[in-house]
Amino acid sequence: MNPTMKKLMMSAILLSLPILGNAQDKTADDYVEYRQGVFNAIGWHFKKMGPMIQGRIPYDAVEFKRHAEAVAVLSHMPAEGFVKEAKDSTLPTRVKPDVWFQTERFNTYMDDMIKAAAELAEQAGVEDKDELRPAYGNVAKQCKACHDRYRERG
Amino acid sequence: MNPTMKKLMMSAILLSLPILGNAQDKTADDYVEYRQGVFNAIGWHFKKMGPMIQGRIPYDAVEFKRHAEAVAVLSHMPAEGFVKEAKDSTLPTRVKPDVWFQTERFNTYMDDMIKAAAELAEQAGVEDKDELRPAYGNVAKQCKACHDRYRERG
Repeated sequence: MNPTMKKLMMSAILLSLPILGNAQDKTADDYVEYRQGVFNAIGWHFKKMGPMIQGRIPYDAVEFKRHAEAVAVLSHMPAEGFVKEAKDSTLPTRVKPDVWFQTERFNTYMDDMIKAAAELAEQAGVEDKDELRPAYGNVAKQCKACHDRYRERG
Repeated sequence: MNPTMKKLMMSAILLSLPILGNAQDKTADDYVEYRQGVFNAIGWHFKKMGPMIQGRIPYDAVEFKRHAEAVAVLSHMPAEGFVKEAKDSTLPTRVKPDVWFQTERFNTYMDDMIKAAAELAEQAGVEDKDELRPAYGNVAKQCKACHDRYRERG
């Protein structure tokens, strides 16, 4: 494709965006990919802490805190991917339709996760890993509560 | 599949993990999915700022800062997905093989992104969006520099 063709093509694509998009020119699929990417990253960091708590790998206070802080900052992000504009995505997703009708209740679950993750990140850094067990368990509990209610079984 | 079969299957899968995995029982694919998820989230937040800078959507200082801070915290995360253990993944990825042989140089690119993103987040919040143009441009520049060197064209 020559440069002029490429420019014309790009213009055509850009001009067609308002038809597909919402106010922010993002399609429904972008929301899904965004939130799935964030959840994947939350899971990644969360799962690095479990084996330390359970004593299956050596406890490293610095590493543990790093992962706890990652979960805490990431916990603020997925809510942004559950707005109405995301509803019509055709990508595979395990979200239950209730999410779109129980916004207030769903947000409570999100807030509970944020709070639990912040508490774990704040407590992390201590010498005795067993002190972190309740806060870690509480994050796991908040994840599960929301999954049970708003995520289809995989 | 009946529950007993399912349990046997799970046991077989779990037993086979050490053959595939590294010290942390994560397969190479997990690294790829982790870093792609993080990059996707970085792109999401980064792309929300561009239209404000360019005046295509109204500038909202609070929203801009929120996105800038998200990019800043996320910028610390992708490096973790580029360790040697990730090399043998069979998932589609655009990473160039140089990444695995130029660790020190690659890390410099990562550090430059972290620094640029931190500067933008720090400056964000000002009334005049044009003041943010250089710092925003610098983040874009750091993204592009690394993509040009270490990512195959899509």
